[in-house]
Amino acid sequence: MTSPVPVNLKDLTVDNITENVHAINSQCSSLRLKYLLERTVTHLHDLARETRLTTDEWMATLLFLTQVGQISTDVRQEFILLSDVLGLSLLIDSIDHPKPENSTEGTVLGPFHTHEAGHSVNGSRISQDPDGQPLLVVCTVKTVEGTPINGVEIDVWETDSKGFYDVQHADRTGPDGRAVLTSDDVGDFWFKAILPVPYPIPHDGPVGKLLQQLNRHPYRPSHMHFMFKKAGYDPLITALYLKNDPYETTDAVFGVKDSLIVDVQKVDDEEQAMRYDVELGTLLIKYDFVLVTEKAAADLRRKKAEQAMASQGRKFRFIDDLPVPEVD
Amino acid sequence: MTSPVPVNLKDLTVDNITENVHAINSQCSSLRLKYLLERTVTHLHDLARETRLTTDEWMATLLFLTQVGQISTDVRQEFILLSDVLGLSLLIDSIDHPKPENSTEGTVLGPFHTHEAGHSVNGSRISQDPDGQPLLVVCTVKTVEGTPINGVEIDVWETDSKGFYDVQHADRTGPDGRAVLTSDDVGDFWFKAILPVPYPIPHDGPVGKLLQQLNRHPYRPSHMHFMFKKAGYDPLITALYLKNDPYETTDAVFGVKDSLIVDVQKVDDEEQAMRYDVELGTLLIKYDFVLVTEKAAADLRRKKAEQAMASQGRKFRFIDDLPVPEVD
Repeated sequence: MTSPVPVNLKDLTVDNITENVHAINSQCSSLRLKYLLERTVTHLHDLARETRLTTDEWMATLLFLTQVGQISTDVRQEFILLSDVLGLSLLIDSIDHPKPENSTEGTVLGPFHTHEAGHSVNGSRISQDPDGQPLLVVCTVKTVEGTPINGVEIDVWETDSKGFYDVQHADRTGPDGRAVLTSDDVGDFWFKAILPVPYPIPHDGPVGKLLQQLNRHPYRPSHMHFMFKKAGYDPLITALYLKNDPYETTDAVFGVKDSLIVDVQKVDDEEQAMRYDVELGTLLIKYDFVLVTEKAAADLRRKKAEQAMASQGRKFRFIDDLPVPEVD
Repeated sequence: MTSPVPVNLKDLTVDNITENVHAINSQCSSLRLKYLLERTVTHLHDLARETRLTTDEWMATLLFLTQVGQISTDVRQEFILLSDVLGLSLLIDSIDHPKPENSTEGTVLGPFHTHEAGHSVNGSRISQDPDGQPLLVVCTVKTVEGTPINGVEIDVWETDSKGFYDVQHADRTGPDGRAVLTSDDVGDFWFKAILPVPYPIPHDGPVGKLLQQLNRHPYRPSHMHFMFKKAGYDPLITALYLKNDPYETTDAVFGVKDSLIVDVQKVDDEEQAMRYDVELGTLLIKYDFVLVTEKAAADLRRKKAEQAMASQGRKFRFIDDLPVPEVD
């Protein structure tokens, strides 16, 4: 517990209000929350001062945020969408999960991951959409040194052939287009899916209206989501993108990375078709994922944080590996 | 219409994502919205980079904002509360309604203004709470030069004796503790109210939890709200605060100004009691409000905006009196 700071919150003006808000917030006993609030208040106040924000503009913003909250449900998270279209989701994932050279890059989680999918065995069909183009996905999971990793839990999810996730269908009866797989003894996993298609993020709500005002389209290029978890490894949230998609360079949520773009091939020999129990000529995606150990990720995160802190002209210390200002 | 800017949104990193989000947002045809978005994105991204914001912290923030939206209703606006407790409401009012010397200072609107009160004649009783201490309020409205202003529409609102606004009672039958009055030919207006009491802002929701985490109390010192409107004058949103209130220097929403603090007096002569139709000894507040013309406020706002813009090392022009960057 920090003891209360004496404050005299009177006659606050454009020029002195920020330091006074900091003064009363500095009673907070969590040093991390105190730091987050201090920076949040400073940035919001600076934003208002720099732009000479008007009461009408601010009220419109508050009503916009209210609508973003109110349209959100268990299966639709409009604030994540907002974070996505402002580039914040990608940025924060990049800060939190830095990737050393030679490991698989991460990308945005998006608002459609659920915990509904059951565990499936390798080779399972994860999409029941009869209109989808059948696709075989064959992958490996390895360490940066090339050692296969077994027992990795892999969440995969994709839309149906019309570009909708299961949770976007009001009449759905259960999960579809999702599965949780496990890498086998040699670090392999494989499943039957459908070819991803481009789709718009939900744009019938306030975030869609914002994109429209910005003259931005709401489309994401064709992709399939992956999330990897195993004790001792930094969780990897990523996706594979199909080559030559019309939205490859204008993804509404800034997720595309060249290293995650894949060429769609075809199953072209009988042995392979037999092995994976698919017809010859079935579309095929292959990818080798590389995970980073928890320690390597933590070390890199800490190193990058220290570099960023050093450039701020203020002394910091780390609590639970997160920076807070050194009290002087 | 600005023509679309060529963008190549791939391989975005902690270091280059901000400029790329700006690039795609620069397709916006409203120069003002484009500027607001540019500064918003820069500040949010800088906040994340400076604090090394984690995915967990950001998700907790998004869920908090979702709750703020979801608890809001027609009669409870939690986003305004959030803006109030972060000092943003007071700051933005100060930017938008700068006050020249010798005019009445403004303060926070708060989330409890409604448009339900009917027009009342001077002398009306605005509170029906039998437990409130009767209070006579006698005021004048003048120009900076001291000329009385007639026909000013004055919205007044206050809580009941328990510290609740009418809209906070689920079983209310109509407006109470509010009225819309009009200044008379000599710029006077007066009404019968009850003595304001300190009260907590609604703190059973997410904003209350935030205050608790910050070790801040949710109380506002005893006050009564006023809003003045007349064509040709800058709208004045203000309040009067009672002297010696226990929360005078720690108002949860930063609204107190010395010039708005009033001494509660008593009606002490019979002529006065007769004139206002109250008992001798009734509590009394007197205040002389001074309005600023629309033109004087606009000129001062523009002057302060130009000063603020000059310090930013960037060229600006004004559209509808609001700054936007000069395109080079």
